[in-house]
Amino acid sequence: MTAGMSRSRLAKARSQRAQSSKKSEPAVISTEAQFTARRDKAAADIEQWLDRLLSRAAAKGEIARPQRLIDAMRYATLGGGKRLRPLLVIESAALFKVPRPRALMTGAALECVHCYSLVHDDLPSMDNDATRRGRPTLHRAYDEATAILAGDSLLTIAFDLLARTETHPNPAVRVALIAALARAAGVGGMAGGQMLDLAAEGRYGTQPLKEAAIVTLDTMKTGALIKFACLAGAILGQAPKPAHDALARYGHALGRAFQIADDLLDIEGDAATVGKSTRKDADQGKATLVGLLGRDGAHGRLAALVAEAESALDRFGANAATLRAAARFVAARHA
Amino acid sequence: MTAGMSRSRLAKARSQRAQSSKKSEPAVISTEAQFTARRDKAAADIEQWLDRLLSRAAAKGEIARPQRLIDAMRYATLGGGKRLRPLLVIESAALFKVPRPRALMTGAALECVHCYSLVHDDLPSMDNDATRRGRPTLHRAYDEATAILAGDSLLTIAFDLLARTETHPNPAVRVALIAALARAAGVGGMAGGQMLDLAAEGRYGTQPLKEAAIVTLDTMKTGALIKFACLAGAILGQAPKPAHDALARYGHALGRAFQIADDLLDIEGDAATVGKSTRKDADQGKATLVGLLGRDGAHGRLAALVAEAESALDRFGANAATLRAAARFVAARHA
Repeated sequence: MTAGMSRSRLAKARSQRAQSSKKSEPAVISTEAQFTARRDKAAADIEQWLDRLLSRAAAKGEIARPQRLIDAMRYATLGGGKRLRPLLVIESAALFKVPRPRALMTGAALECVHCYSLVHDDLPSMDNDATRRGRPTLHRAYDEATAILAGDSLLTIAFDLLARTETHPNPAVRVALIAALARAAGVGGMAGGQMLDLAAEGRYGTQPLKEAAIVTLDTMKTGALIKFACLAGAILGQAPKPAHDALARYGHALGRAFQIADDLLDIEGDAATVGKSTRKDADQGKATLVGLLGRDGAHGRLAALVAEAESALDRFGANAATLRAAARFVAARHA
Repeated sequence: MTAGMSRSRLAKARSQRAQSSKKSEPAVISTEAQFTARRDKAAADIEQWLDRLLSRAAAKGEIARPQRLIDAMRYATLGGGKRLRPLLVIESAALFKVPRPRALMTGAALECVHCYSLVHDDLPSMDNDATRRGRPTLHRAYDEATAILAGDSLLTIAFDLLARTETHPNPAVRVALIAALARAAGVGGMAGGQMLDLAAEGRYGTQPLKEAAIVTLDTMKTGALIKFACLAGAILGQAPKPAHDALARYGHALGRAFQIADDLLDIEGDAATVGKSTRKDADQGKATLVGLLGRDGAHGRLAALVAEAESALDRFGANAATLRAAARFVAARHA
């Protein structure tokens, strides 16, 4: 801050800076505080968009939105969550100067898929979790049938949102987003990873997994959706192939880093801060890289993946500062 | 059949008829036997397409298809089912001379959504059914977690299939199909109807439904997907609005007729023929028009809806003979 500047000149300079940063997004950021501000702004925007998109009033072409079901969908999505995936959509889209509302539509759709997966994963026959984001899980707050239907409806509405003109005026772009999200979320991605995760507990008589199999599991269960988040910006921005590939490398490393950090949190974290039960993986016999490599080994792997993620962004220079900070944030998070 | 025609001339005439009918699809059909032949051909084609699309090998962009999960998805979709919804897609598409492979892709996607809904509806916390299509339900044959994930994956892959170029070369058409299917299947359609259905059992302290509420429930739970099937042909064929609207009227009446026929089957049908438990609705306190109007009243309503469905097709003349026969089939079916 310039010493000797009058209060009114300072305010004017700040306002000019804010305006120019608005015009020339993506803004260059240099401190973790600036990252936090951008992350919080993204989270607030996504909250607002989800609140609107998951309104209690029926949308065009819908017959009605039964109150219990839409309330359950809102419970599962609103008022919590780090909104990491939407942040990645917003920041990767900003690299290509995609209008923010398009990134918010895509981020909201992706968050619906993420929240559906949490609701179903928490069910008694799955991970049987009682707490999520510091509150009772959906099937505890409502009931199991409602939780199943709310998850199904969140997954379905994600594709509804991506299909809307609001997401992108070009239908080819919308269909590319839909194809990539379905591929990332389905049998060959997230849902498949969840199946491998349950199998790795030994439920179906399977053997303990070796490292390569755990990496596959993590890449599917968590990595695929995070990678989609990073690629979504390139799809929305109709980016050239080298930029697309760079974001794919970033997203792949980030996804793996995220899962290792998550597994470390399960061991090192405090349930109250994390907002869900901790120390469950070992009890449930979950296959994790932390279990295989030990805590020190896992911390080393995590650092290497963060470095890999950061370096994948070289071609974007200072414009990718927030995405670089996001990689560090993923590794260092406490919740 | 012309009396006095020699056997060989008769065979030749038949063969010419078959060829000309092949060229000039949609063929005019006049008998229930011809309807059955077209229905069976559609079912066989859909079986073959689902077998290919749900192969054990990963598709491009997928990491792997975990065997237990893809096997469960195949169990839920292959080797059974009337394939009514795909038939409606195929026949409505034929009105606009849509190439059959496009209708089959769309029909296969829709059947994945239908089968996902059956898998989730059968779960213990939902309708708790042990038998489906004459076999153990998926969660009985596998386990509950696998059934939840298989349902999720079938719903997801439906959008994946619709997003492929194979479904239609024009991305605007693909995105229109995706939007319509998501709207029909989600909170404002099928999933919402399922929520209303559970609520009507009195689970959540709700009151018995009046007629208008049961019609809304049926329109959402069963009607929305059947209506989508009929509209899919118009979307694929980029049909003019009057034709689109006529198919919407047909689909709406047919969907309502289907649910009444289903409710009548639950009372009048034999479990072995129907392939699932019967006489469960009254036990579970399900809200049905049959319960409200009585069997005679319901049969009367059913006949009126079939007539309404048939008359909606007037503008298509003889080309819509199979769709008209489908309406009669829905009303008269025994399984």
